[in-house]
Amino acid sequence: MNARTLKLLLFALGALISGPALAFEPLPDQPPIPKDNPQTTAKIELGKKLYLDPRLSVDGTVSCNSCHNVMAGGDDDRATSAGVNGQRGGRNAPTVWNAAFLSVQFWDGRANSLEEQAKGPLINPVEMGNPDHDTVIKRLKQYPEYVAAFNDVFGKDGLNIDNLAKAIASFERMLITPGAPFDRYAKGEKKAIAKKARQGAELFQKIGCITCHSGPAFAGPPLPEGTGFFQRFPTFADNEFVKKYELDQDLGRYEATKNEADKHMFRVPTLRNVAMTAPYFHNGKVRTLDEAVRVMAKTQLNRDLSDDAVEKLVAFLETLTGPFPELTLPRLPEKSGTTTISAH
Amino acid sequence: MNARTLKLLLFALGALISGPALAFEPLPDQPPIPKDNPQTTAKIELGKKLYLDPRLSVDGTVSCNSCHNVMAGGDDDRATSAGVNGQRGGRNAPTVWNAAFLSVQFWDGRANSLEEQAKGPLINPVEMGNPDHDTVIKRLKQYPEYVAAFNDVFGKDGLNIDNLAKAIASFERMLITPGAPFDRYAKGEKKAIAKKARQGAELFQKIGCITCHSGPAFAGPPLPEGTGFFQRFPTFADNEFVKKYELDQDLGRYEATKNEADKHMFRVPTLRNVAMTAPYFHNGKVRTLDEAVRVMAKTQLNRDLSDDAVEKLVAFLETLTGPFPELTLPRLPEKSGTTTISAH
Repeated sequence: MNARTLKLLLFALGALISGPALAFEPLPDQPPIPKDNPQTTAKIELGKKLYLDPRLSVDGTVSCNSCHNVMAGGDDDRATSAGVNGQRGGRNAPTVWNAAFLSVQFWDGRANSLEEQAKGPLINPVEMGNPDHDTVIKRLKQYPEYVAAFNDVFGKDGLNIDNLAKAIASFERMLITPGAPFDRYAKGEKKAIAKKARQGAELFQKIGCITCHSGPAFAGPPLPEGTGFFQRFPTFADNEFVKKYELDQDLGRYEATKNEADKHMFRVPTLRNVAMTAPYFHNGKVRTLDEAVRVMAKTQLNRDLSDDAVEKLVAFLETLTGPFPELTLPRLPEKSGTTTISAH
Repeated sequence: MNARTLKLLLFALGALISGPALAFEPLPDQPPIPKDNPQTTAKIELGKKLYLDPRLSVDGTVSCNSCHNVMAGGDDDRATSAGVNGQRGGRNAPTVWNAAFLSVQFWDGRANSLEEQAKGPLINPVEMGNPDHDTVIKRLKQYPEYVAAFNDVFGKDGLNIDNLAKAIASFERMLITPGAPFDRYAKGEKKAIAKKARQGAELFQKIGCITCHSGPAFAGPPLPEGTGFFQRFPTFADNEFVKKYELDQDLGRYEATKNEADKHMFRVPTLRNVAMTAPYFHNGKVRTLDEAVRVMAKTQLNRDLSDDAVEKLVAFLETLTGPFPELTLPRLPEKSGTTTISAH
C-alpha cells in the first residue's frame, strides 16, 4: 500500500466514523507548498510578472490574467474564453483564486499540479497559441531582466519552461482568500454572516451539497497533489436542465484519459468566490448563481428546490467571497528599442 | 484674433527671439489639469478601475490597458492592436505615458482631450466593439459598486459617458514619468547620463530633431488643449524607407478632417519612454529604435546618419525612460451571482 492509498483509506475511514454530517472548515492561511518549489519573495514577484505578461502568448495579446483575472473573480466573466486571433476555448475558465488548494487542475483534472497546469495554455492553439514551449523561452531570453530574474531565483541558466511554471505556480499560491465572512463564522464569530446565510449553510449540509463540496475549499477533501476529487456530472441526466444547458455534451475527464469510467467525470470545483465567477459549469451555459444552484440540486441530488431554499443557499454561497490580497502592478521587463512580437 | 492664435503667435515670436537652438526642458511634476475635471483621489481610483476593466468592451476581452499597458511602455508591443474578435486596428497604439502633456490625442489629433479620446475606442468596431456608449453605461449600471463610485465622485446619477471619460482621463493624468535620467541631467546632475547619451543630446539639437520634438514631452511646445502640434510625415518621400515601410500609405489627419492641407499630417509623438514603445511609427512597420532614428533623419531632415550618430541618438533617447509610478491592482466591481457579458 503506498502513501496515497493509505491517506485515501484513512480519509474514508474518518468519514465513516464521523458520519455523513461533514463539518465546515475555514480555509488555511497557507496552501500546500510542494517540497521542490518552496515559496520565496523573488520567485513570487517573478511569477507575478509572468502571470500578467501578454508576451507569453504568440501575438502578445493574451496573458494568464486575460482569462484568470486577479482583479476580479479569477476568471473572465465569459462562457468560454477568448484566445489569440479571436479563437474560443471549449470550457469555462476556472477561477485561479484558491486553485492552490486543489489536488489537480483543469475541469478534467489532467494536470497534477499548478506547475503542470501553467504549461498547458502556453501551447494550446486556441489559448496563447505558441507552437511549442521553446518559442516562449526563446522570446523571454531576449529580455535581460527576465534572464537575470530567473538566474537570481533558480541559479545559472535558470530560464527554462519548468522554472517558468514554478514561478507562476508560486505566485498562484499567494492567490488565496482565507478570512471570508463564512470563515469568520466557522471560527466562532456568529454574527459574521446573516441569518439567511446560516440557514443556507444548514441546508447545504442537510440536502447533501457538502458530500462533494466538502473541505476548506468546498471542492472535496484535501488530497495529496495529483489525486483529484471527481464526480459524475450530470449524475441525474433525465431532466430539462441537462437538455437546456447541454450539460451532457462534454465527456469530461474521458477526453483526457480515454477511460470509459471517466465519461462525464469532472473535478469538483471550489465554491469559494463562486458568487464572483458567473457564468457557471464547464460550458458556462448557466448565467446566474440561483439557476446554478437549482441545476446542481436536480442533476446531482435529484431534488427540486423551492425559491426559498435557493435564496438561502445563494446567501450562504455569497459568504464565501474574498477577502482578496492587495497586489501591486508589476513592471514588465522591456527589451530596449525593439519588440519581440512578430508583425501581423 | 482668438486666444489660441495669439498664443501660437507668441510662441512663434519667442522661437524667433530665442533663435533655433531650443533648450531642453525637464518634464513637470504635474500635467495640465482642465478646470472642469479637477483631480481627486476617488476619481483617479475609479478611473483606474475603468481603465483596467475588460468589461468595457462588448465581449469582456479588451480593456484600455490591453493596448496601452501601464505595466509596460503604455502600449502593446504590436504593429497594430488586437480588438474584440481578433480584429486588427489600422494604426500603432500610442503610449499612454505622458499623453496628459499632449494637446490633442490620437495619431491624427482627432480628439481634443484625454476625455474625448477615452470615448473613441469604446465604440470603435475593431477595438472595444460596443454598438454605442449607451450599451457601455447600461452594463456598468448593473454593478452597484460602479454606480456608488460614480455617484460619490460626480454626484447623483453620476454614471454617464462624460463622467466615465473624465474618470479615465484623471487616472491617465497620473501616468506621467518626470525624473527620467535625462530630466536629472537637464536639471544639472551632469553624471545622470553617460557621455554617449550627452553626445546624442547635442546631435539631437544640432541636426534639428528638436525642431519638432521640442518641449518637456519632446512632442512639440506645450499648447492649449485641443491645439495640436502636427508635422508632415514623410516630408521627404523619395527614399527607400518610405517604400520599404509603406510610410506614405496613411493620409493621417486628412482622414479625420478631409482637408487637403492635412494629407500626411500627423501629431508629433512624444519621445519619452520611446525605447519601450517599439515597434515604431503610425503603422508600426519599423521594428527597432535605431532604424526608426535613421528613418526619421531621412524622411524629415533628408539626412543619412552614420552608425555612430545613430548609436549616440539612441543612447540619448534611452535616457528618456521612466521612472514609473507604483500602482496597486484595483479590485473590479462584481455583480454577485451573474455575468453581464452575453454568451457567444
